Amino acid sequence: MTATAPGTGARPGPVGGTLPSARTRPLPAGAVRLGPSGLLGRWQQRNAAATVPHCLGALETSGALDNLRRLLDPADPEHHAGPYRGFNFADSDVHKTLEAIAWESARSGAAPHEAEVRRVVDLLRRVQGPSGYLDSHVLGSDGTAGTAPSPEPYADLRWGHELYVLGHLVQAGVARARATGQDDLLDVAMTWADDVVSRLAAGEELVCGHPEVESAFVELFRETGDAAYLEAVRRMLELRGHGRLGSGPFEPAYHQDATPVREATEVAGHAVRQLYLLAGVVDLYLETGEDALLAAAARQWDDVHGRRTYVTGGMGSRHKDESFGDPFELPPDRAYAESCAGVASVLWDWRMLLATGEARYADSLEHALLNVVAAATSTDGTAFFYSNPLQVRTGHDGADEYQASGRRGWFACACCPPNLARLVASLHTMVATRDGDGALVVHLYGDADLEADLGSELGAGPGTGAPLRLAMRTGYPWDGDVVLTADAPSPVPLALRLPGWADAARTRLDVDGVEVDVPTALDGRGYLRIGAGARVVRLSLPMEPRAITAHPHVDAVRGCVALARGPVVHCLEQVDHAGVVLEDVVLDVAAGLEVGPPDDTLGVGATLVGTGRATPAAGTPLYRDRARDAAGGGVEGGVELPVRAVPYAVWGNRGEGPMRVWIPVAAPPRPGDRRRSGR
Amino acid sequence: MTATAPGTGARPGPVGGTLPSARTRPLPAGAVRLGPSGLLGRWQQRNAAATVPHCLGALETSGALDNLRRLLDPADPEHHAGPYRGFNFADSDVHKTLEAIAWESARSGAAPHEAEVRRVVDLLRRVQGPSGYLDSHVLGSDGTAGTAPSPEPYADLRWGHELYVLGHLVQAGVARARATGQDDLLDVAMTWADDVVSRLAAGEELVCGHPEVESAFVELFRETGDAAYLEAVRRMLELRGHGRLGSGPFEPAYHQDATPVREATEVAGHAVRQLYLLAGVVDLYLETGEDALLAAAARQWDDVHGRRTYVTGGMGSRHKDESFGDPFELPPDRAYAESCAGVASVLWDWRMLLATGEARYADSLEHALLNVVAAATSTDGTAFFYSNPLQVRTGHDGADEYQASGRRGWFACACCPPNLARLVASLHTMVATRDGDGALVVHLYGDADLEADLGSELGAGPGTGAPLRLAMRTGYPWDGDVVLTADAPSPVPLALRLPGWADAARTRLDVDGVEVDVPTALDGRGYLRIGAGARVVRLSLPMEPRAITAHPHVDAVRGCVALARGPVVHCLEQVDHAGVVLEDVVLDVAAGLEVGPPDDTLGVGATLVGTGRATPAAGTPLYRDRARDAAGGGVEGGVELPVRAVPYAVWGNRGEGPMRVWIPVAAPPRPGDRRRSGR
Repeated sequence: MTATAPGTGARPGPVGGTLPSARTRPLPAGAVRLGPSGLLGRWQQRNAAATVPHCLGALETSGALDNLRRLLDPADPEHHAGPYRGFNFADSDVHKTLEAIAWESARSGAAPHEAEVRRVVDLLRRVQGPSGYLDSHVLGSDGTAGTAPSPEPYADLRWGHELYVLGHLVQAGVARARATGQDDLLDVAMTWADDVVSRLAAGEELVCGHPEVESAFVELFRETGDAAYLEAVRRMLELRGHGRLGSGPFEPAYHQDATPVREATEVAGHAVRQLYLLAGVVDLYLETGEDALLAAAARQWDDVHGRRTYVTGGMGSRHKDESFGDPFELPPDRAYAESCAGVASVLWDWRMLLATGEARYADSLEHALLNVVAAATSTDGTAFFYSNPLQVRTGHDGADEYQASGRRGWFACACCPPNLARLVASLHTMVATRDGDGALVVHLYGDADLEADLGSELGAGPGTGAPLRLAMRTGYPWDGDVVLTADAPSPVPLALRLPGWADAARTRLDVDGVEVDVPTALDGRGYLRIGAGARVVRLSLPMEPRAITAHPHVDAVRGCVALARGPVVHCLEQVDHAGVVLEDVVLDVAAGLEVGPPDDTLGVGATLVGTGRATPAAGTPLYRDRARDAAGGGVEGGVELPVRAVPYAVWGNRGEGPMRVWIPVAAPPRPGDRRRSGR
Repeated sequence: MTATAPGTGARPGPVGGTLPSARTRPLPAGAVRLGPSGLLGRWQQRNAAATVPHCLGALETSGALDNLRRLLDPADPEHHAGPYRGFNFADSDVHKTLEAIAWESARSGAAPHEAEVRRVVDLLRRVQGPSGYLDSHVLGSDGTAGTAPSPEPYADLRWGHELYVLGHLVQAGVARARATGQDDLLDVAMTWADDVVSRLAAGEELVCGHPEVESAFVELFRETGDAAYLEAVRRMLELRGHGRLGSGPFEPAYHQDATPVREATEVAGHAVRQLYLLAGVVDLYLETGEDALLAAAARQWDDVHGRRTYVTGGMGSRHKDESFGDPFELPPDRAYAESCAGVASVLWDWRMLLATGEARYADSLEHALLNVVAAATSTDGTAFFYSNPLQVRTGHDGADEYQASGRRGWFACACCPPNLARLVASLHTMVATRDGDGALVVHLYGDADLEADLGSELGAGPGTGAPLRLAMRTGYPWDGDVVLTADAPSPVPLALRLPGWADAARTRLDVDGVEVDVPTALDGRGYLRIGAGARVVRLSLPMEPRAITAHPHVDAVRGCVALARGPVVHCLEQVDHAGVVLEDVVLDVAAGLEVGPPDDTLGVGATLVGTGRATPAAGTPLYRDRARDAAGGGVEGGVELPVRAVPYAVWGNRGEGPMRVWIPVAAPPRPGDRRRSGR
């Protein structure tokens, strides 16, 4: 049981407010504390101890803070005389880092890095223009520092990213206000935001090439109650989808500017932009209840999850324009699957879950979180993947940071690291919600303590006036047993997510010593319902290793399986298969898969082991007649070997080398083959 | 038998000269005439009648000629007042079109478009700077026309493309001189070339981000005998490979600037750049005999053909940087396989063939020519593919010209159409060569008449003083029978290529009515040798349809076959499979493949037919547990249907729609499956 920091425990986390159209509502940010022994809690601790300080340091070394200091009076001792550095949206790295620190404050109840934060807030305030405008790339383009001469604000909506930068500034300000009660950063953000709202109200057609400000302005409405921010979002969504942003080098769909938001049936264009936009669309729905918004988002969710998502939860197949690609175009080797798309997918899933209360959105959220998002950061918390391939080949050229063979400390375009930091700092707020009927709904399993005043305004619903204290103990996702213990009979019903990968017939549920029939307990939204009064709930999920196949139209992985256990997707790494070329290995699925031992180096509680065969393919011609090819492409026969699969989340932490998620399956003998194995 | 135009028949074609280090040498450009009834001859006729005029017209509509007219005195009636249009290397579109017209002159013995050509030559001469410099993008960048202010020549070697433009100008000038005897364009080109040679000699480190000038300068040496051009090429090759060109947004390997040319073991970077460079490297070898050059080229040839070539002959897998990609990274759907890479591959193969006399280079040349290069142009000769995918999916977004679902008349970057035109206009020169031992070597089969004075300087070797007149008659590649008839017993030995796809044991060869044992006649370089004195030679190649499998490391096509007959790769198109979704179709390879009827609409002499099955996959989840998936991914069972494959070269000529070269093979029953087909 946990005491929350005075005055902050009851404040909201991200997506904080009354959410009139939500089916299920977030708890206060302090309601859930993830324990240090579980996967999620350790992740948050590592984020606080390593990733957030690393990001803060990189704001100095990358030039992101100097870009702001350039704008100070040259007589100011803090003035920086060098040129602008980095992409034109580098300010957002600063803002995302501030947001991460804020949520970390809310999580820990401490005030980490407060002196640095105050210095940055002071810097922002001092360089902010009289209108509130605060994009250092545009403000600093005076022709004296090697950049293009004096662009006007909002002159290049397609590529300028100014409202994107504003969005992140707003989110940082809101987070700091909620986490610490300090309005200093929020004031800076609102000064700029108010100018944008005025311009929109005056008819200026401000719509940003990179969505993000939409969610931010809805949060600002939640924080201030000022409906002008909602109206601004509505206006920006209406402006979008009519080709206003122009094109070149990419088509309007790249910027989600080809189809009006309410009419879209498929995801399109740049994945991160599309996913942020959809999060914003659902944010507006949560406040307004406009069904067309949720319906459009749900259609696009079905499209992307039915046709354009990697088995790791990654999204955005293409390197060239960072876009989704055609339906079923999911190459593992050239998967772009940007880390920020993983983050954005989680943010969208969270809002879909709040809007609908349906477990499939929580399934997706957890899946992306534990696979593509987790993989983006090294086990020490200080190196990152920009893109997250599902295969690295022998001979891969990883010189380019967008297709690196290993994680890197920072990037020319450094959007991902602080984005990961802000998400991880707040992920305890996604563990549970309060349903419209008052039930406490548990979405994510992990070692956690929950303390909620169920009569409080947040997590509203039929209040009981009684606090609920609940301890969740589990080795999940390495173990399928989850035990929830309330310190008194629960005053409200409970609901536990039955993950989509879990077979209800093999799931066990026990409430205060009485076994409950799982199919009967399962509601229409994917949760196991337990009436009020429960004290000890034991859920046992089936954790047998699973071999996963893809839809037959996913040509790139035909004849392969991916290995999973619970929500965790696994991969093979060369380092675990000495003496063979990883691409030569095929899996003998019929020989079965077993749970392997934990790996303390990688920090995982389980691995998978199986049997494979390797036939050296060196010297095989690139193409040959099948009629001459008695061995069916060289995947039969070969030397038997043990296969070890580790969680995808931790690949690439033992040096660089080949890796693959999709593993070719040993072909069954063909009619007429005289031998099955050996050469 | 054909009379060549007076004075031009004995002139050389491309790669024209004594080629001291060649193992086999080109014939004069007029030695071979392709007949109008064969595939190659019809292609040349269409090129002359449709493609070349189309390119000439596009030089006007695209602005390529106006870019030059901008540089005229404003008082000049021909002066153009508008801004520069297109990419900074648009001049090369003009030069490649001029080269195509020149080779077309040599082929036809006529002087097509001569008035237009003279006007363009005159325009070039009038805008040429005093030093000879003639890049209209740089010359026209005076800040008055919307372009960047006044760049200096050669200030941006990485991206400026100036020597690339010069190379194409030189090749056009050489072609016009050889084809027509007119030196007007050659003089313009040499004025610029001589300035570059002087700069190099003075120590300027001129090395172009886009190779092309290397082959051109070697041709200029062949044409003029001036060794300074050879020395310039040697110097440019030495300058390359040391990172002089810098980087951004791509690494030095993109420009082949990471590794010295003599040390390279793999192809790297932008495919067209690499392939042009390798053609130039072999051109220098042909003149100098420096073994290190040929050895490096041969290593890279083995790399690209063993690990990085599509089954269509296409090269360059990646869209993002137009590069080759990692070994075995050959996705059919995202194949970039630029048309210009196909052209460049043919040009390199031709030089490798001349250098070595080995049939595998002719195999590759023919394969690229009849598949990826042929596919790039529509059946009417006026529309083109920029990239040449091996699969188009249902739902493909073909809005971008680089991934278009259908051919287009022109492109923002219009490198491909005139490149195709110049190659096709000269491809009769690749039909046969003269070996070092005096033999006439036939590389390409087609309806053709050959007339060569074997004592002439070109096609040198032990001369006989006697002319050889040879008629080749065949329906190849639709028919495997080739008959060569000399009008008198051949004064020299003959050698006929045995294609790599042809099984020697099933090939028949008959010389003057006597059957020859094919394995015995086969020399170590892949040719069937026939002694002097032959009059009628009949070659019969085995033309059974073939199902081709890929190396097991080509993950993207696992479980699939490509269909071929002779050198022609086939594909399935949706238009031939009404009532099913093309992606649902699997091929029953065991049911066999038959030769189907010709298709006059598509202009092909044969198609392929087989048996497939289609199981609708709509509604199948994107991922599912294999254990729950009794049907093995949905590719078994289904409705039986006839499958029709058409040559890849003619895909996309009957409207836009799904297409695939690699076809999933119906899975054999798995142990434990209770049924094989039907649902």
